[in-house]
Amino acid sequence: MTKSPLSEQHRHHNLEQSRAEIIELLSRQALEMTVVNRWQQPGQDLVTQLTELQHRTAIGQRLSRFHPADVAFVLESLDPGARDIAWGLVRPQNRGAVLLEISASVRRALVQDMPASEIAALASPLAAEDVAMLIADLPAEIRQQVLDTLDGPERAEVTSVLSFPKGSVGAAMDREFIAVPVDATLSDVQRSLRLQKAIAAQTTQLFVVDDKQRPLGLLALAKLLQSDPDERVRDAMSELAAVFHTDEPMRDVVHAFEMYDLVTAPVVNLHDHIVGRVTVDAVVDELNERAQSDNLRQVGLTRDDEDLFSPARQAARRRWPWIAINLCTAFLASRVINAFGQIIEQLVALAALMPIVASLGGNAGQQSVALLTQRLTMGKLGPGELQRVLLRELKVGAINGALYAVVLALITLSLYGDAQLALVIAAALLLNLMLAASVGVLAPSLLAKFGRDPVMGSSVILTASTDFMGYLLFLGLAATFLI
Amino acid sequence: MTKSPLSEQHRHHNLEQSRAEIIELLSRQALEMTVVNRWQQPGQDLVTQLTELQHRTAIGQRLSRFHPADVAFVLESLDPGARDIAWGLVRPQNRGAVLLEISASVRRALVQDMPASEIAALASPLAAEDVAMLIADLPAEIRQQVLDTLDGPERAEVTSVLSFPKGSVGAAMDREFIAVPVDATLSDVQRSLRLQKAIAAQTTQLFVVDDKQRPLGLLALAKLLQSDPDERVRDAMSELAAVFHTDEPMRDVVHAFEMYDLVTAPVVNLHDHIVGRVTVDAVVDELNERAQSDNLRQVGLTRDDEDLFSPARQAARRRWPWIAINLCTAFLASRVINAFGQIIEQLVALAALMPIVASLGGNAGQQSVALLTQRLTMGKLGPGELQRVLLRELKVGAINGALYAVVLALITLSLYGDAQLALVIAAALLLNLMLAASVGVLAPSLLAKFGRDPVMGSSVILTASTDFMGYLLFLGLAATFLI
Repeated sequence: MTKSPLSEQHRHHNLEQSRAEIIELLSRQALEMTVVNRWQQPGQDLVTQLTELQHRTAIGQRLSRFHPADVAFVLESLDPGARDIAWGLVRPQNRGAVLLEISASVRRALVQDMPASEIAALASPLAAEDVAMLIADLPAEIRQQVLDTLDGPERAEVTSVLSFPKGSVGAAMDREFIAVPVDATLSDVQRSLRLQKAIAAQTTQLFVVDDKQRPLGLLALAKLLQSDPDERVRDAMSELAAVFHTDEPMRDVVHAFEMYDLVTAPVVNLHDHIVGRVTVDAVVDELNERAQSDNLRQVGLTRDDEDLFSPARQAARRRWPWIAINLCTAFLASRVINAFGQIIEQLVALAALMPIVASLGGNAGQQSVALLTQRLTMGKLGPGELQRVLLRELKVGAINGALYAVVLALITLSLYGDAQLALVIAAALLLNLMLAASVGVLAPSLLAKFGRDPVMGSSVILTASTDFMGYLLFLGLAATFLI
Repeated sequence: MTKSPLSEQHRHHNLEQSRAEIIELLSRQALEMTVVNRWQQPGQDLVTQLTELQHRTAIGQRLSRFHPADVAFVLESLDPGARDIAWGLVRPQNRGAVLLEISASVRRALVQDMPASEIAALASPLAAEDVAMLIADLPAEIRQQVLDTLDGPERAEVTSVLSFPKGSVGAAMDREFIAVPVDATLSDVQRSLRLQKAIAAQTTQLFVVDDKQRPLGLLALAKLLQSDPDERVRDAMSELAAVFHTDEPMRDVVHAFEMYDLVTAPVVNLHDHIVGRVTVDAVVDELNERAQSDNLRQVGLTRDDEDLFSPARQAARRRWPWIAINLCTAFLASRVINAFGQIIEQLVALAALMPIVASLGGNAGQQSVALLTQRLTMGKLGPGELQRVLLRELKVGAINGALYAVVLALITLSLYGDAQLALVIAAALLLNLMLAASVGVLAPSLLAKFGRDPVMGSSVILTASTDFMGYLLFLGLAATFLI
């Protein structure tokens, strides 16, 4: 971004610097406070107190000129002590907007310390779906307290949003849309638009409906501006590329939007009546969330773990299951090695070489896993596709297995001068790379087929297999042919 | 998606089924052809030929009713033989649109077999940026041949697009935007819009410019429809949230769009004159591409490798560097083990236990890497943030290291009845998990700091460190205290 007469607020470089300064100031404040609390007497001297107050007011003023998304960025970059100070400096009327922009785990940390009345005050200017997002993770009783403070129609709307499962279209849709009757003329539409309250600046298309509020087509604002006012909506509208049900997963929406380059689509209930719309904003959020959660899910974490400054003890606990699973698979591999203890005692070179076979298998297999999970995010495998992919990956495994088997055999021969050992490690590597290819294709495909998450489970299954089989193949072949 | 009177073409479930059927039919055709070529005499009998022709015409007709994005999906799901048949069945006038939707590797495979004249024919109805995308990867001489067939102004435009580096705003922007003078009235704007050719249906906002074509603000179509026609553009326009330079990376655009929920923004040249616009479509594509390439880059692949049906030999070659790097790190670890050969000979349990220490270190460290890379995709680390994150991850590593050290010590004690061995493995695991935390934080941060790709390099650096140090710590401690 560059400077422009009006974009003062969002000048990119200034902004980054400005955010960094605020983060540093707040961190230092938090540090000083700890020091003061720890070392000074309760009766602090007045000058220190006043200076601190002055500093904070200045920071608060700078924060108030930030976009809510930038305030959210600052809060996410602070550890809990500094974050609490910063949150105190955000003006109450801005807090709702900031909470909507902040990551889920930080939002939860901030909201759970607030009394219900304060949450309700934040919620009152927000749209129903935003309120729902804010209170969705709260304990049931506090959530109920917040709901009780809302007036009747708004409470009903929020409750209805909360009733849709997470990740469904109903939970993500927005309820503000403009529907125009198919039999009106364009000038009718223009007249009625002038009477309505302001249309959101990002609106591109109005929804055309029949007399039962069923969506029939889209009417672009551009068309409305350029066509003959006497034209009928029916003739000016464009085809509906997609209509979604409230209970469909957002995944379908993302897929359709990216495939057909949509910007908006109507959402209907069970009776096919239009009840909301999904926009490309929701798709961007979903895509972004997905990209971020993919990285984390691969290592057994969720988006809840993304707060880099949550207390270490809490973070440690979230990571236990992942380490425990990996301990189990490592332990299994260890038992395989243990079973061949005698052979290793006789030929200790085996101990040095065996991790190479196991780890190359894992690394090669991860490539197949990555290709497959990427393919699976685009949709189910077509008929016969699994077999064709499996065959191809097996071929790739065989080619690279053979190639690196030769390389590894030559290294082994030159280091240990043992031709038979070289042959054994070559055979083990070739077999393990072909095994890795099979598991790398089958693990994600089967996980996806049975409705499990291929990203989360595949790499554990793969390394468990390639470690276990890598040791077993290498030591087993060695036991058979060498001793 | 659900059925709706007009959305026949895109009914989701029917569509998925329909795509699957076509894929199966085409795969079978390709298979039959191979069989026929291999087993029958050159003079095939006429009936077979006619039946085949009939089949193909039917498939071609069904394909022609597909959206280009769906045809692209079908082509991506086919192996090269069937893909060539399918491509032959796509009508020439649809081919350009299909190529724009298809993944880069498949596009390259299809385009490189075409003569320049055919590519030029496909290119003629397309926008300059689309032509540029189509020919960007072609050999220089064919690219020049295609360029030579274009008329003067279009050639200049395409050349200008090609001159921007990949991933820059200039290469991704679109050149069709509407600029309105800041001093006009809304009715002036409405009048001039009626005279222009059709505005794209997805247009939401017009760009407001001064007399030097510098962007000053945005004018929403919604505003144009709802405000008093005598109002000046200056008073009706909204603030520019962002302006981008042609040479900025698209990364910045994605960041700004997702942060501030933008749908469009003007692009300016070095003189701050408006030359194009970026839209949310480009952001969706970029996000999608990024999400897909993250998975692949982690295992040393690029988006070029995503074609699941490229020849196995070619795919194998693309994976060599990754396996070679991992062979090197595995070899280093192997040398560490080799150095402790004598001790392993004396106490073979060490061989069975050592992979547990190494692999748990790697697994725990991957979690730190995932959190850091995710944090880094959102922007640079703030001042002091690296130290704070490092400290926290070290704490997490210490907590989980201590916990699993106790678990592993108890398992070791019960299996081998050797208290000293149990203590040694506990100490090695604790130290390796803390090392993993440090490397897991430092590797991605430093790679990002020096402008390298944290996703691609981090996990190799991490496992190299945790393997090497895991073996060294465990066997080193064993050598010191056990023998």
